[in-house]
Amino acid sequence: MADNPGPQETRLESQRPPTGRLLKAPENFLDASGVRQVFAEAHNGRRDFIRQAFAAVGAGTAVATATAPVRANPVPAEGGDPEILNLPEHSRGLGQPVATDGYGKPSKHEANVQRRPSPGLTQTPQSSVSFAPLQSLFGIVTPSGLHFERHHQGWWDIDPAKHRLMINGSDERMVKRPSVFTMDELMRLPSVSRFHFIECGANTGMEWGNVAVPTCQYTHGMLSCSEFTGVPLKLLLDMAGVDYKRGRYLLAEGADGSSMTRTVPMELVESGEVLVAYGQNGEMLRPENGYPLRLVVPGVQGVSWVKYLRRIEVGDQPYGTKDEAIHYVDLMPDGRHRQYTSTQECKSVVTTPSGGQVLLGKGFFNISGLAWSGRGKVKRVDVSVDGGQNWRTARLESPVLSKCLTRFNLDWVWDGRPALIQSRASDDSGYVQPHKAQLRAVRGTRSIYHNNAVQTWLLKESGEVGNVQLA
Amino acid sequence: MADNPGPQETRLESQRPPTGRLLKAPENFLDASGVRQVFAEAHNGRRDFIRQAFAAVGAGTAVATATAPVRANPVPAEGGDPEILNLPEHSRGLGQPVATDGYGKPSKHEANVQRRPSPGLTQTPQSSVSFAPLQSLFGIVTPSGLHFERHHQGWWDIDPAKHRLMINGSDERMVKRPSVFTMDELMRLPSVSRFHFIECGANTGMEWGNVAVPTCQYTHGMLSCSEFTGVPLKLLLDMAGVDYKRGRYLLAEGADGSSMTRTVPMELVESGEVLVAYGQNGEMLRPENGYPLRLVVPGVQGVSWVKYLRRIEVGDQPYGTKDEAIHYVDLMPDGRHRQYTSTQECKSVVTTPSGGQVLLGKGFFNISGLAWSGRGKVKRVDVSVDGGQNWRTARLESPVLSKCLTRFNLDWVWDGRPALIQSRASDDSGYVQPHKAQLRAVRGTRSIYHNNAVQTWLLKESGEVGNVQLA
Repeated sequence: MADNPGPQETRLESQRPPTGRLLKAPENFLDASGVRQVFAEAHNGRRDFIRQAFAAVGAGTAVATATAPVRANPVPAEGGDPEILNLPEHSRGLGQPVATDGYGKPSKHEANVQRRPSPGLTQTPQSSVSFAPLQSLFGIVTPSGLHFERHHQGWWDIDPAKHRLMINGSDERMVKRPSVFTMDELMRLPSVSRFHFIECGANTGMEWGNVAVPTCQYTHGMLSCSEFTGVPLKLLLDMAGVDYKRGRYLLAEGADGSSMTRTVPMELVESGEVLVAYGQNGEMLRPENGYPLRLVVPGVQGVSWVKYLRRIEVGDQPYGTKDEAIHYVDLMPDGRHRQYTSTQECKSVVTTPSGGQVLLGKGFFNISGLAWSGRGKVKRVDVSVDGGQNWRTARLESPVLSKCLTRFNLDWVWDGRPALIQSRASDDSGYVQPHKAQLRAVRGTRSIYHNNAVQTWLLKESGEVGNVQLA
Repeated sequence: MADNPGPQETRLESQRPPTGRLLKAPENFLDASGVRQVFAEAHNGRRDFIRQAFAAVGAGTAVATATAPVRANPVPAEGGDPEILNLPEHSRGLGQPVATDGYGKPSKHEANVQRRPSPGLTQTPQSSVSFAPLQSLFGIVTPSGLHFERHHQGWWDIDPAKHRLMINGSDERMVKRPSVFTMDELMRLPSVSRFHFIECGANTGMEWGNVAVPTCQYTHGMLSCSEFTGVPLKLLLDMAGVDYKRGRYLLAEGADGSSMTRTVPMELVESGEVLVAYGQNGEMLRPENGYPLRLVVPGVQGVSWVKYLRRIEVGDQPYGTKDEAIHYVDLMPDGRHRQYTSTQECKSVVTTPSGGQVLLGKGFFNISGLAWSGRGKVKRVDVSVDGGQNWRTARLESPVLSKCLTRFNLDWVWDGRPALIQSRASDDSGYVQPHKAQLRAVRGTRSIYHNNAVQTWLLKESGEVGNVQLA
């Protein structure tokens, strides 16, 4: 543990000001005439279609009524035109009843939007990962059914009536009243609800080398964001009578067969941010995400958000368990491992357009993506379409919350030439997301974890978007 | 339409200051000693259980280790105790693999958490309602699988490749360039994401009379909250070249067989708040909620959030369609109907404890509930446990967003005697949620719609909670 900088983590990446020229972006949206113009210039086929569809209305020869003609839904002329047979069934018939499902499902047309494992990435599907389809998501909330998965010995659907949370000390003086809580007892206690991102420390790990995995789902998909509900851990420790002077660390332990254990510095708990959570996005946690109880450690890598949480032990030093001595450590250029680098630094990624997508034509597009920081709030996101030579500042969707995903959007007119699309976030601590070269200069290329470098997508003339290694 | 107050709606309820004494509430949580004390006083059985479980640790005869004894999960003594057979399977075995489902599901132990129809409420299950299980939800996000449903001719799963949105005028001068948009075209345009509640105008309608339906799900469950993503309607109207001087109203029309149509005042659109939305809680809208396109009209009753949106017509006066002339109107004491009262006024409800729940014993409980206002942000929520004689101010969970649900929580120690539990919200316009008697004094008892009165739950000595009619 000689290399352990302790809870005050060293931030190796430089606090450099942004590089490249900053161009003025529209304060708000492109105005309508701008959007119209670029559609007209770049999208002639579509425009012909629209013009045809409205030839009658435009010429003033037809009056729009409450059942005005829509190309897709032709309406019968007066007197009962047989064209009514062309009305889509959903405009004529009786649909499905309410509560077809007591718990609803997405459209069958969205069946391709799935979390997906990466074949061959791990030895077994139980100790493995599935990635969230970021390229298909909107806003900041990740639907719980698409939340990324990371299991160490598979997932379980534990009976909450039998689940317990124990709080004890590493010696008898550390905790005055060691305690065991049932779920009923925890759910009677004061509760808070907060939006936070969770990111696996290994997210974007393949990008350390020169492996450019094809899609945003596989480069950045070990990232999700939810509204969590639970009890502040500080309250439980207060109830148990913790000696905070000596007890500067705690060990969190899961109930699954991997006995996942992680050290958490007490100062994170004292901030009030760490939760013993049972709720996620309005309902109980999902089994794959720790039902009925998981630790929520905002800003810290996902492995510390121990699932199936069964025990908290308070101690006076880091525990150095297998999951923090061998895994989730940073292999540095000098061959040493950097340990306890658990805070997820400021990072961002463009999710549309992104690898694997195809743009339908030149003209206007909404560039959209996600930014986040384990240190606080996202302050700004700049976007480049020329590989970092020029940047424009994106709009941030509100609310911008601490240690939470932030959605950004930027108006863009694609001229049809190849483009290198990047985003670069900064947070309210002043930290700026590093470029790959900056990160490699300090960290080398042999790491797996904690890659928060700027991501580059190459948009080809064909409209195809791919991942490309760019310093 | 003589009774139509137009877009500047009359707010009949008085702007009275709160009634009853306001007591000082703890600034934050009860501190740990407080929680401990009430557990000790009221919960002796449990405490014995905890004491027994920790007798060994408490007496200092055992040293807690990384696998310290937990009552539910006994750990073998050194040498291999056969007790290991008592370890739950999930602490010994190999769990389920990742991506068991490309789209995950809730725990089997939560199968009872469903949206539910009210048998007999409507003639057909296609023109009907299912209610969200508010009593089982946390925070402010409603899981899309539990979002309430309201269909007028059943729901459909429309192919988005064939869906179109048309924008036209009531005459040829109203809209310069009538337009038809494909889904692809809409999704290229500037996009915004915002959290908003949606409430059916008939929510809590049964409470106008003396029908006390049993649970929070049935009294208030036509209420949900999501993060919506889409294009501001204003932008589409700008692109189409609307004459805003004449075009002060618009008609929104759905593509389902009911041809649902609603008038929306143009000033709501001009505020930038009205969205043509395709995204909900991170993914595409669900079929039951209008996939692939619905209108989002923040603060306004759900019927105006037209599903399967296929057409927007701009006109110079309210349309007075069947869905606004016959339905969603307020039957006043003088026998007249009040029309176009679409803004959902400030309202709140305690969801725990609520009707149908049973408290397990005396002592500490977290009172939790939801507050919202169609006019802006919730400013304060007061809670009474004595039917409105005394009030305490609850904690509001952040973020508190405009026209969005706000979660409130309050520490409470139940002394075991009958209690009348109420919540009363106020918003940043200064409006205070009315008591039932205040609302009835103006509106009578024969309405169906727009009941935002204070809700009362009766907690009996047995711990059972029920709905009770209280002025």
